Amino acid sequence: MDPLRRRSGASAASSTTMTITRMTTLVVKMLPMLWVPHRAAASGEAQDEALEELATEKEAEESHRQDSVNLLTFILLLTLTILTIWLFKHRRVRFLHETGLAMIYGLLVGVVLRYGIPATSYHSRSPPSCSLTTGPGSSLLLNVSGKFFEYTLKGEIDSGDINNVEQNDMLRKVTFDPEVFFNILLPPIIFHAGYSLKKKHFFRNLGSILTYAFLGTAISCFVIGNLMYGVVKLMQVVGQLNNKFYYTDCLFFGAIISATDPVTVLAIFNELHADGDLYALLFGESVMNDAVAIVLSSSIVAYQPRGANTHMFDASAFFKSVGVFLGIFSGSFMMGAATGVVTALVTKFTKLHCFPLLETALFFLMSWSTFLLAEACGFTGVVAVLFCGITQAHYTYNNLSEESTKRTKQLFEVLHFLAENFIFSYMGLALFTFQNHVFSPVFITGAFIAIFIGRAFNIYPLSFLLNLGRRHKIKGNFQHMMMFAGLRGAMAFALAIRDTATYARQMIFTTTLLIVFFTVWVFGGGTTPMLSWLHIRAKGRRERRRRHGQWEYIRVGVEPDQDPQPSADTFQVLQGDVSQAEGPSKTKQESAWLFRMWYTFDHNYLKPILTHSGPPLTSTLPGYCGPLASCLTSPKAYQNHEQPRDPDCDLGRNDGDLTFTFGDNGITTNGVSGGGGSGADGGANGKRSVSTSEEALERELDSREQELLTRGTRLVFPIEDHI
Amino acid sequence: MDPLRRRSGASAASSTTMTITRMTTLVVKMLPMLWVPHRAAASGEAQDEALEELATEKEAEESHRQDSVNLLTFILLLTLTILTIWLFKHRRVRFLHETGLAMIYGLLVGVVLRYGIPATSYHSRSPPSCSLTTGPGSSLLLNVSGKFFEYTLKGEIDSGDINNVEQNDMLRKVTFDPEVFFNILLPPIIFHAGYSLKKKHFFRNLGSILTYAFLGTAISCFVIGNLMYGVVKLMQVVGQLNNKFYYTDCLFFGAIISATDPVTVLAIFNELHADGDLYALLFGESVMNDAVAIVLSSSIVAYQPRGANTHMFDASAFFKSVGVFLGIFSGSFMMGAATGVVTALVTKFTKLHCFPLLETALFFLMSWSTFLLAEACGFTGVVAVLFCGITQAHYTYNNLSEESTKRTKQLFEVLHFLAENFIFSYMGLALFTFQNHVFSPVFITGAFIAIFIGRAFNIYPLSFLLNLGRRHKIKGNFQHMMMFAGLRGAMAFALAIRDTATYARQMIFTTTLLIVFFTVWVFGGGTTPMLSWLHIRAKGRRERRRRHGQWEYIRVGVEPDQDPQPSADTFQVLQGDVSQAEGPSKTKQESAWLFRMWYTFDHNYLKPILTHSGPPLTSTLPGYCGPLASCLTSPKAYQNHEQPRDPDCDLGRNDGDLTFTFGDNGITTNGVSGGGGSGADGGANGKRSVSTSEEALERELDSREQELLTRGTRLVFPIEDHI
Repeated sequence: MDPLRRRSGASAASSTTMTITRMTTLVVKMLPMLWVPHRAAASGEAQDEALEELATEKEAEESHRQDSVNLLTFILLLTLTILTIWLFKHRRVRFLHETGLAMIYGLLVGVVLRYGIPATSYHSRSPPSCSLTTGPGSSLLLNVSGKFFEYTLKGEIDSGDINNVEQNDMLRKVTFDPEVFFNILLPPIIFHAGYSLKKKHFFRNLGSILTYAFLGTAISCFVIGNLMYGVVKLMQVVGQLNNKFYYTDCLFFGAIISATDPVTVLAIFNELHADGDLYALLFGESVMNDAVAIVLSSSIVAYQPRGANTHMFDASAFFKSVGVFLGIFSGSFMMGAATGVVTALVTKFTKLHCFPLLETALFFLMSWSTFLLAEACGFTGVVAVLFCGITQAHYTYNNLSEESTKRTKQLFEVLHFLAENFIFSYMGLALFTFQNHVFSPVFITGAFIAIFIGRAFNIYPLSFLLNLGRRHKIKGNFQHMMMFAGLRGAMAFALAIRDTATYARQMIFTTTLLIVFFTVWVFGGGTTPMLSWLHIRAKGRRERRRRHGQWEYIRVGVEPDQDPQPSADTFQVLQGDVSQAEGPSKTKQESAWLFRMWYTFDHNYLKPILTHSGPPLTSTLPGYCGPLASCLTSPKAYQNHEQPRDPDCDLGRNDGDLTFTFGDNGITTNGVSGGGGSGADGGANGKRSVSTSEEALERELDSREQELLTRGTRLVFPIEDHI
Repeated sequence: MDPLRRRSGASAASSTTMTITRMTTLVVKMLPMLWVPHRAAASGEAQDEALEELATEKEAEESHRQDSVNLLTFILLLTLTILTIWLFKHRRVRFLHETGLAMIYGLLVGVVLRYGIPATSYHSRSPPSCSLTTGPGSSLLLNVSGKFFEYTLKGEIDSGDINNVEQNDMLRKVTFDPEVFFNILLPPIIFHAGYSLKKKHFFRNLGSILTYAFLGTAISCFVIGNLMYGVVKLMQVVGQLNNKFYYTDCLFFGAIISATDPVTVLAIFNELHADGDLYALLFGESVMNDAVAIVLSSSIVAYQPRGANTHMFDASAFFKSVGVFLGIFSGSFMMGAATGVVTALVTKFTKLHCFPLLETALFFLMSWSTFLLAEACGFTGVVAVLFCGITQAHYTYNNLSEESTKRTKQLFEVLHFLAENFIFSYMGLALFTFQNHVFSPVFITGAFIAIFIGRAFNIYPLSFLLNLGRRHKIKGNFQHMMMFAGLRGAMAFALAIRDTATYARQMIFTTTLLIVFFTVWVFGGGTTPMLSWLHIRAKGRRERRRRHGQWEYIRVGVEPDQDPQPSADTFQVLQGDVSQAEGPSKTKQESAWLFRMWYTFDHNYLKPILTHSGPPLTSTLPGYCGPLASCLTSPKAYQNHEQPRDPDCDLGRNDGDLTFTFGDNGITTNGVSGGGGSGADGGANGKRSVSTSEEALERELDSREQELLTRGTRLVFPIEDHI
């Protein structure tokens, strides 16, 4: 039934497997290697003891070399991936993204490791006389014939596996600590996502994004969980499943598989410059639902019904879980936002921007500390890092020097790129080297059907509801594209690998892995045809991009400072565009009201306090706050206030601007900052910056119409990307 | 005698100590935490078992939080350092460098950890019934009442410390795996040093630098080793030392303390734009002698006389050690150079430069793989990384896109900065938290005297010998400055902490730590007065630098692409300047001959093969190599050949050029690339590029004299840096 599960002698000893933890294990392993010979030289008592130590030293050295070779293999794998990606990009091949490629290479190496490498002899030494000095805890002292060795706890071993430990040692190494994903690889990926969220389209669609991310993920989780529970019940009836598989396991599966990761789709969107709003919806949803899925899955784990282990519904336990969810989520959010705000204040009130290196280092450390702070407080570090990234992008970014903005972006871009490709190639590898795969065709088929149904229950009903309120409707083709872009990726994998102790969890892990493979390859590869088929066409932005600099249009990854589509260019696809432009000012729904509230508060108070931009606080705060206001206001703010465009200060920051859409558009009439520049940042010509957002909205309405008229002629000739 | 050695209850339990290894330990520790509850939920058998597991979970969670707090403390420490550095830089305070500051903060935290934090209760649990499944190896399986736990070997414990293990657990955590320094923190520092070695002054002074680094370090090592052996003998006579202290220990101390690290001095040089040749001598020596010291110290460890443990001289063992030294050094060198060359070829023959992100990632991975490759082959990774850095800077850098050159520089600059400051603050911390300090006033005093004598025996005799051959003499004040700049830093510390198992090594560690503190604070702080006192004055380059971009003159760290002093400006200090300009062409010593040989080979063959620059191979290779030559030659090379300055291709790369001095000067006559531009890179106007270096030297001689004449008027007004 599960042919991959058999543990052949050949596969068990695949010795060139490697992990990033090798690096750290290597550190641990080198210790005895370095210690022992020196001790021998120093104490120098018995000759045989020295010989024995020499043998240990040799062994440790051998193991160290082996580790280096393992890690090296992996680096070469990544190098190969990079070179092939280049070839693909060079030839404009779009059916396979770098992540898909990394998985394929991982698979190949996995096959080689499993079947290609002959068994190495593993000498099982007989236990010498020894005694334990302390009990089992996180560390252990072992007294072997007078010498003391210290051991640290690695983990509990399944008693079923106990006989295979020696044998499977090498293969087990590959399935390395899942926490590496959470603590080392995911934070840079998630931070980068937050940091590159700096798109006005994101803020314009904030309500919809949050709806999809929170409500949608919850719906998806419960739909999938319940469907899978049905599948599991069915399997138990027909005798396909003999092990335990609880309802909570099904819900857990629903939670982890609800984290979408349309990295492939977004890369193609970016390349083809497809619709900006759709991009924002997909990107925003995927980023936010990662956070939701993490917290949701840990809430489900925390859902422990009282009394017996029925794993069935228990109201108090359910509400406790909901409480846990809300608590962890809001706590992590606060934590992330708080460090972002602190960083913004520090960069604002020091002249650190004179020293880009210091600034970058500080930025890096502060962002990292968010993760640790959240973990220290019992919140979720990854979620905190996401919101930290968003806050940093929204406030701190404006205070950084021009060079630091580039440095930080590029630093996190590289980290993100490496981490992401590492995870994806590890996924490919895991299919062959992970030892406890449980391939259940019925469960897998059920899961594939369930995720489509779950996604459909997420997208279509919510889109319908959102369209009731939205002036700028989410069109049918957009909904289909969102449905299609429900790829699963790094987060689902990381959550699945986190716990593979029970049979149910192993089955979940295997299924998740296959779903990731399938969606990344099939849906990722089918993005370009799907976009054509749905008539979501690329727009004529190439000429515009060219101005920014050479090669920009083929750059990899998500560009933080370019919005993929200026709003006016979406004209053709979004038929309700004129009304959309009037949207925020005319609709009287709560989201618009909330949005306006937030905008006013952010523009008048938060931005001036935390950054050098925005109107001076002296003009927005009431009179009695005078001294405080003038103390908090940056001297630059007055400058901006008086002269809307200071060539020295602002020129370099244009692309880094974080203004909200309609504040931005309000400026467009002046013809100064056409393409999303530092309009609202500079507070806008003279008196206008003191105005409230309502006034700005009114003006924006007028200006928007003007703009559409003037741009109309250009828009009728969309330059098709020559695919 | 050693008040810091006593282990009070308060100090022993300082629980907020932290290390970077916590991050990795954290990963290991979280495993049981995440595994256990899920297992309980899945298997769900006995209630008490679940409770017990819940307790374990709580404990693991607590420990995880503690780890996060620890690491957080450290990050905040670094943040504080950065902010203070900013303040110092802002106020132009030069007596304390960031590394010195990091040490002070580390010291303060160390004091707090040791004396400020009350003892936390450490419950020592009684060992439950358990049995070992396998013998002691790198991993261990423990069977505790039916459950299996896996432990990994952490290291051997000194039997003297056995009773203190529980008690000192927290403080021992701080003295984290020394291999973290070698495998994680040092590589970026060393790579950055190699990568920023791209200075023509370095290549001009290559012979002297290598002499100081190899001969000088060996002299220093043996002088210090022998002096310390005398001190040790003296101590044994007067009864100050009862433990074993062998001759090899003394030599080992000599080796590790010979690694200079004038980071503070160089930072001030950079800031004041002091003499370029002196900068190159100091920087080059410090970089190279780090490599020499690593290999030397491991050769000394490998020096094991046959038969008894006499630790005295044994000719065969000595030559074996010399062989080990040469083998490891050349092997590491080859390894580093080889990966550099491979990277250069890959970046040349692919059009990867269209995708800066891919290029940067590839560059990073290839450079890292050098380290692993060397370790896998049994060589020294750090040394390989150094030469890899130099090769990358010399060849690969020229093939990178403009954006990638910036990205790679900045990436490694940030990594270098963080790693360096981490090491220095850890040093401060270690003074109070390391538990096995052996403070021996006699040994320390002896060591201080010995390092001065050792440094003097290195600098003065070698300078005298070098001056016999050099046209451009190393003046007396330069020699004094080099003597003064013999600071000890990260490398000495890392080598010393690598092994602190024996009494002798503990004494060495403590002494090294104190020497680092003293030299960094006193010599580092005294650099500016010393420069004035020795009449080594800053030159008028500020106006020139301003052109490059704002703030550049106050940037932190070593700038790879700026040579601190153009050669013509050194005129005033170096009285033999005119003869120096003629130097390479007129002196007939071997070094010049070797240099010329190498230059010809590099310029005519290596550069054209590995980069886009240099003359086309079709013109330098013999006719019968025609097809191969045209295959290897980059199309750009022909362009460069025909039109010396292609504004599209070369403009952005000017500052990244790696030409040798006199090839560069040969172009200066044309008045095209005055300040060290892409002269030799472009192959120089028309036919000249095909010429041999001899011809170039002749021309250079003429042009140099012209240049000196024309520049003479400007040079009489050196603009003093307004300190």
